[in-house]
Amino acid sequence: MYFRFMMEHDALHISVDCVIFGYDDNGLKVLLINQQLPNNGLGLDIKSQPQLPGDLILINEGLLEAAKRVLLELTQLNGIYLKQFHAFGDPTRVQDAKDRAWLQSLRTLPDQRVITVAYFGLVSLQDFSPKPASFAGSVHWVDLNDIPALAFDHNEILSSGFEALREQLESHHISFELLPKKFTLSQLQALYELVLDKKFDKRNFRKNVKRMPHVVPLNEKQKGVMHKPAQLFSFNPNEISE
Amino acid sequence: MYFRFMMEHDALHISVDCVIFGYDDNGLKVLLINQQLPNNGLGLDIKSQPQLPGDLILINEGLLEAAKRVLLELTQLNGIYLKQFHAFGDPTRVQDAKDRAWLQSLRTLPDQRVITVAYFGLVSLQDFSPKPASFAGSVHWVDLNDIPALAFDHNEILSSGFEALREQLESHHISFELLPKKFTLSQLQALYELVLDKKFDKRNFRKNVKRMPHVVPLNEKQKGVMHKPAQLFSFNPNEISE
Repeated sequence: MYFRFMMEHDALHISVDCVIFGYDDNGLKVLLINQQLPNNGLGLDIKSQPQLPGDLILINEGLLEAAKRVLLELTQLNGIYLKQFHAFGDPTRVQDAKDRAWLQSLRTLPDQRVITVAYFGLVSLQDFSPKPASFAGSVHWVDLNDIPALAFDHNEILSSGFEALREQLESHHISFELLPKKFTLSQLQALYELVLDKKFDKRNFRKNVKRMPHVVPLNEKQKGVMHKPAQLFSFNPNEISE
Repeated sequence: MYFRFMMEHDALHISVDCVIFGYDDNGLKVLLINQQLPNNGLGLDIKSQPQLPGDLILINEGLLEAAKRVLLELTQLNGIYLKQFHAFGDPTRVQDAKDRAWLQSLRTLPDQRVITVAYFGLVSLQDFSPKPASFAGSVHWVDLNDIPALAFDHNEILSSGFEALREQLESHHISFELLPKKFTLSQLQALYELVLDKKFDKRNFRKNVKRMPHVVPLNEKQKGVMHKPAQLFSFNPNEISE
């Protein structure tokens, strides 16, 4: 018989973390929260670090279900596109000295290993702006170019989430989750250029888009703009061709 | 202060499971093992179900590290391309009646939740054929079209792994992991047609491949074939263009 040291009797925790990208004409932003400090007097000398919205999962909860709950509780965001992209399981990922005080204030055994399953989410900031829930200290949108040092390995998780967004932008038609319901082709092109970090020729870009049956021209133009109003388009997922 | 039922004191386990695809001119195969039955007399009436190679992770082990170890222990496969594609966390995923007897024979608390992180792996069966390690009951390559009912949610994991392979075949240049070191363009085309489930025009396919600097023509032709020997090519990852 073959015996070995299994995890069956070791404590191990699972969390979910969410990299939520918000987009408007000013660029791509990420939703960060400040760590909630315990208000029992113990937390007075703990420095709050910004982090991705996340928490331990509940014992009978699915992973996506947990991501939705945590996001709702911490940021009041609901009903947005969410996709799992990677599980992070470095055995020491929550044992960094910088994270110790905060973990100690929250958990009885702060050294125990936590594996986190990460989701990315997409939301158009033109249609919608989340208000922080009272549970979290504060919630704020931070430009992707101005991300500070985050708690735990959250900078790595964020980079990896952006990589997933970049890889799936075209093949999964998820760019439309970041745009308003009615958008111009300039907005679509600007989003592609920002995420893929390259310039497209305007005429070629429009020629390619016109071949996509799922990008539907509307009988409607922009309103309230200084320049010549551009035609509006909408996304129809039922028209996606293979 | 906000309290709720956290997982901190609940038992939860993490495993890794590997969907290993092997390819040769006969098609795409998946590596399955038969569940190892305890040889302590208790296992006599337990039906062994085929499953993906997988096991619980060790307490100080990273996820990829665990996948490599488990694969080596169960199948003697080593040094192959492995990539994480999804974590499966349905709270009831190991509680199906069909899986109960086997779990009971192995674990003290067979009802406890197990979240598994799945990897897909790629190997060319022309270059190499794994021998089962003595620890596992048996290891065998099964054609993707003939996969039987597997233990737990392993059929779902396998489908999802194939979907990941299909999505990443072109963008990540992983097709070459499935081909022999020296391959013909017919072999490359046959692999694409099989995985992507569509036919390519031979001339267009070759025209496209000739534009890829990472597919390098060799000064060498096939040997020992009945038909006119075709030119051989190799993959050079350093020549990948953006």
